[in-house]
Amino acid sequence: MEKQKNIMEIDTVALDDENSAIVIIDQTKLPYETTLISLTTQEEIWNAIYLLQVRGAPAIGVTAAFGIYLAAKQIEKDESVHTYIEFIERWIKAKDYLNTSRPTAVNLSWALNRMQRICEQNAEKPLKQIVTLLHDEAVEIQEEDIRVCKAIGEYGLSLVKPGDGLLTHCNAGQLATSKYGTATAPMYLGHERGYHFRIFADETRPLLQGARLTAYELQSSGLDVTLICDNMSATVMRNGWVNAVFVGCDRVAANGDTANKIGTSVVATVAKRYNIPVYICAPTSTIDMSTPTGDQIHIEERPAHEITEMWYKERMAPEGVKVFNPAFDVTDHDLIAGIITEYGIARAPYIESLKAIFHQKTQENQ
Amino acid sequence: MEKQKNIMEIDTVALDDENSAIVIIDQTKLPYETTLISLTTQEEIWNAIYLLQVRGAPAIGVTAAFGIYLAAKQIEKDESVHTYIEFIERWIKAKDYLNTSRPTAVNLSWALNRMQRICEQNAEKPLKQIVTLLHDEAVEIQEEDIRVCKAIGEYGLSLVKPGDGLLTHCNAGQLATSKYGTATAPMYLGHERGYHFRIFADETRPLLQGARLTAYELQSSGLDVTLICDNMSATVMRNGWVNAVFVGCDRVAANGDTANKIGTSVVATVAKRYNIPVYICAPTSTIDMSTPTGDQIHIEERPAHEITEMWYKERMAPEGVKVFNPAFDVTDHDLIAGIITEYGIARAPYIESLKAIFHQKTQENQ
Repeated sequence: MEKQKNIMEIDTVALDDENSAIVIIDQTKLPYETTLISLTTQEEIWNAIYLLQVRGAPAIGVTAAFGIYLAAKQIEKDESVHTYIEFIERWIKAKDYLNTSRPTAVNLSWALNRMQRICEQNAEKPLKQIVTLLHDEAVEIQEEDIRVCKAIGEYGLSLVKPGDGLLTHCNAGQLATSKYGTATAPMYLGHERGYHFRIFADETRPLLQGARLTAYELQSSGLDVTLICDNMSATVMRNGWVNAVFVGCDRVAANGDTANKIGTSVVATVAKRYNIPVYICAPTSTIDMSTPTGDQIHIEERPAHEITEMWYKERMAPEGVKVFNPAFDVTDHDLIAGIITEYGIARAPYIESLKAIFHQKTQENQ
Repeated sequence: MEKQKNIMEIDTVALDDENSAIVIIDQTKLPYETTLISLTTQEEIWNAIYLLQVRGAPAIGVTAAFGIYLAAKQIEKDESVHTYIEFIERWIKAKDYLNTSRPTAVNLSWALNRMQRICEQNAEKPLKQIVTLLHDEAVEIQEEDIRVCKAIGEYGLSLVKPGDGLLTHCNAGQLATSKYGTATAPMYLGHERGYHFRIFADETRPLLQGARLTAYELQSSGLDVTLICDNMSATVMRNGWVNAVFVGCDRVAANGDTANKIGTSVVATVAKRYNIPVYICAPTSTIDMSTPTGDQIHIEERPAHEITEMWYKERMAPEGVKVFNPAFDVTDHDLIAGIITEYGIARAPYIESLKAIFHQKTQENQ
């Protein structure tokens, strides 16, 4: 267990030196303590994802990739396994098991399917070599995640000046990715270059990801962060303390409408009043060109107890009171100043600029 | 102790049948239990105000008036007290003591000074009669409070229709006044007349007055109330569920700018985007014509622990993190559709309409 370490020096998810275990920061213990835990068995890895000890779509994808590589290594070492058929039968079982840990996380099945393609494309090779190729693919998934975050950070950084006040909502931070985060990437890169940002973190009710995770990771990395309640955004903006808002996203529609953590559209509406630009930090993997507008995005509702009881010593609302608890909201594209991807910054009209981003992505990957 | 009683049937503050004790709802126990407590001694009354067992400017004023009447009654009964001089000397001491229970609450000293004028104007009368006059004045202070709230409720009700969705922030409810509240007065009056409002109560971080008090009092009075987090206002408005916003206020400036609980200006900004009118429910006692604009209103900052630790089982933010915790914010007058007073509804331009309200008040009181 390590306490108050600069988490920029700790990977959210990493393989240990012997490639025999996954090491993660236990996010359920934050912000009380920074605990690193080591995951070896498939059950341990499944539990870590299921229990949200590791969370955030990119970080879950990387954990799954490392996890299924470890499974391959263990299967290959078993003396009863000789042929590819024997190997892949057990490997697919392990993959299907891991895939049930958080069935709604797109990156989980995406990473596992990508790993499966490596097996299939190399079925004729020795098992030891397949295991090595799986290792390399998992590392590549992680490195891609870091490259995407870093690219978003560089584009984001080009939009602000040293000394600026930046506001963020929820946690689209390092803890949700392998490194840098998305919304926090411009902050971390700016910090490395002495930009001295003044950052405001919304606590983000009801699950308090801003207080528990964003304030924690920025503070422990030495950034100047101030925690506020979600309803204080207008005050810090009215005071002239905020020059730009950076947030992450769960899904961007083809017209730029953006689903993100509940409250994002409130921040964006207030920012518009004070002429403060709102930037959505969006890896292209979260832009869904098949969803025309925000109206087609289904908003998950979560249980009442998250608002009335969770975290508290005692219930903070009357028994039986009706509660509405949407987990996300949609920010209309007219409230968004730019959508920052790893291929550049899309500006209104998004229906055209996002198409151009995907065109560029296709060309660069050819 | 009484549980889950319809609180519209319980006075927030009342004298008992023998005029020998003040009975209040202990608001520090809400929403866990509805406990009535009886206050007899000056120490008990002082503590009830100091400990926020009774809160809300109007309710504190009424409690102080009843309290200083009880003091007069006790002093008059003392066999060592014969003359007005002997009486008033001890009474002023009791008044000064009570006045220290919450020095910043304007209504506290306002009510006590009003009671003192009754003593001074009747110094030549028998002590027993002065005590009776003090009783009547305290009752009048309470009845005025109820009349003001009821008048605001009637004007507010004229702005909405049966079945409307109404949103409120913090607690400007019955629990902050003698009856009806200010922002809740249209809701209670509408409920009495079968309006079937659908009410949304913001939980109001960090002190959770919306969850703990507003949701509690509306629910226990049989109204249809749904609790939401402060950052969900845009979602309920975007869904078309809100027809009007009613909030209370701490101070209204001469130009209509309004200081109220932190987050009010966020709600008002979001409401403006969705063309939903925001009404400030303001007894004329809270309108300060000597404050030209909101820029001159000093905003109290409160301690960090209210955001990071209060109510929680464990600290929910990293140790030592910077916190900004303003207790109020200023809603600019252009976001306000109307200011509802006991003398009618002021509309923009407020600089003129508020003057007209005070002109009317002066005429009606002549």
